[in-house]
Amino acid sequence: MKGTVGELGEFGLIRELTSRLTTTPAVQLGPGDDAAVVAAPDRRVVATTDVLLEGRHFRRDWSTAYDVGRKSAAQNLADVAAMGAVPTALLLGLVVPADLPATWPVELMDGLRDECHVAGAAVVGGDVVRGETITVAITALGDLRNREPVTRAGARPGDIVAVTGWLGWSAAGYAVLSRGFRSPRAFVEAHRRPEPPYHAGPAAAELGATAMTDVSDGLVADLGHIAAASGVCIDVTSGDLDIPAQMTDIGQAVGVDPLQWVLTGGEDHALVATFPQSTKLPARWRMIGRVDKALSTPQVTVDGAPWDKAGGWDHFGDD
Amino acid sequence: MKGTVGELGEFGLIRELTSRLTTTPAVQLGPGDDAAVVAAPDRRVVATTDVLLEGRHFRRDWSTAYDVGRKSAAQNLADVAAMGAVPTALLLGLVVPADLPATWPVELMDGLRDECHVAGAAVVGGDVVRGETITVAITALGDLRNREPVTRAGARPGDIVAVTGWLGWSAAGYAVLSRGFRSPRAFVEAHRRPEPPYHAGPAAAELGATAMTDVSDGLVADLGHIAAASGVCIDVTSGDLDIPAQMTDIGQAVGVDPLQWVLTGGEDHALVATFPQSTKLPARWRMIGRVDKALSTPQVTVDGAPWDKAGGWDHFGDD
Repeated sequence: MKGTVGELGEFGLIRELTSRLTTTPAVQLGPGDDAAVVAAPDRRVVATTDVLLEGRHFRRDWSTAYDVGRKSAAQNLADVAAMGAVPTALLLGLVVPADLPATWPVELMDGLRDECHVAGAAVVGGDVVRGETITVAITALGDLRNREPVTRAGARPGDIVAVTGWLGWSAAGYAVLSRGFRSPRAFVEAHRRPEPPYHAGPAAAELGATAMTDVSDGLVADLGHIAAASGVCIDVTSGDLDIPAQMTDIGQAVGVDPLQWVLTGGEDHALVATFPQSTKLPARWRMIGRVDKALSTPQVTVDGAPWDKAGGWDHFGDD
Repeated sequence: MKGTVGELGEFGLIRELTSRLTTTPAVQLGPGDDAAVVAAPDRRVVATTDVLLEGRHFRRDWSTAYDVGRKSAAQNLADVAAMGAVPTALLLGLVVPADLPATWPVELMDGLRDECHVAGAAVVGGDVVRGETITVAITALGDLRNREPVTRAGARPGDIVAVTGWLGWSAAGYAVLSRGFRSPRAFVEAHRRPEPPYHAGPAAAELGATAMTDVSDGLVADLGHIAAASGVCIDVTSGDLDIPAQMTDIGQAVGVDPLQWVLTGGEDHALVATFPQSTKLPARWRMIGRVDKALSTPQVTVDGAPWDKAGGWDHFGDD
């Protein structure tokens, strides 16, 4: 495809974007009307929204449009999975400059479509407008399959804390990229295109998870949300965290303790959940800590002490 | 409230925004978790997304934050109503500059909340990020109440075309504002804060509407979407359109044929629908035309002839 989105025009671009989409049985009415219609067999729908900005959440020189599509879909679909729900649909609000090559939004849509496919969902609608800054606003929907949603508020003293998916890989990849390197490839890829364990969300709900969230702000920060919502303290045992040898190598090369990435790196969209102590965790879940009573204020500790290094991710911060 | 959104911080701002929200029985889990949970009693959910940008879709010197909230909610909730559905929920993706007074997003949220209340819905979730241009990305959800969705594709030759709500008022108000005036107030208000006839959407579905859309791009353009999707021609009888005397006065003052506003002005979010010929239209619906067979290509005519003045609204255009 040649030309810019301005040359293609609004309706031309929408035609290009929608022509690339695939569907699922849950999509009763796809793009092209005033609204889409999506099956909600459970009589409830799970819904979540995120906004990604060029320069803030992605860089065109670090990530292809396709990767931005995969990643922005992933972070929303992971939020759905973190409720214990099965993702069904995704809507896209897209701001693009008129001089942007038309291939960019088209490849973005390919990425959204493919990530939706991995999660079992489909892109069902959207809106495209012209503006200065590329902005990707995603809404994802999901179905609870007749289970109660797993919120952040249900962790109880005595529960175990477990995680599945990747921790710190995206942060290590970011560190590599920000120093001008393109390898090790596995970590750079993890930064460009996270792989949330979608299936594990509903499986954890089935298994009786008492609280769950996806790790988007960093493990300590996101466990902090569970601790605050549940009114508990959570202690993480650092020795139970998986720090691959290659991550340690990168840490030595760039002068960062890899534990920092694992504890505070977001964007891998691992799932972290609390379970009753007696739960037999499936193979891909790793126990990493315990829930205790909140003595004064709910908080997260690592090996019994507050984790005081810089952590979390405030989107209004200056980093 | 004092200070900027940067001073308030991401979590401070989110606290302020969510503290102002009200809820409905359909909201099973509101803001604050990974995702919201909304009732979908019909086992299907209607979903639509729109993006509004400062400078392109609203101006801070013309509209208050509250009005932008009302308007951006209205245009999405109207899309839900245009499917014949009852709006249930709204999600907000918001981009704000760090130096924006914190009162702005707070009053925006008040507007979203109040417009949702008018439509019977509630704000259930969102995301706030820092960026250069104020961007309001809205997703609205709705419930079909066990009726089939009224798409754009069901108009049949012989159907009548009818409209309810306001046509051309927002465009006339825009003309007034763009010439530096602030009155007549009713038209300026119509531009700042449309009043879509939400209840009329589900009522039209109940009445057997064969196709429906909300007028967001202009009557001729939006009927064009119905004509194209249904494979029919539509003729509008201009004498059956309501052109209030005051709109004629404004037209004379600014040198514009008010019929132009009524036929091509969007943003009032009137509902236009086709019905079987025998339908007894309720009082607030006005018959304005007829559906005919498409002889060659589907098109919309006014009094039997193509409407060739500038119309519609291409968001990539230079206006």
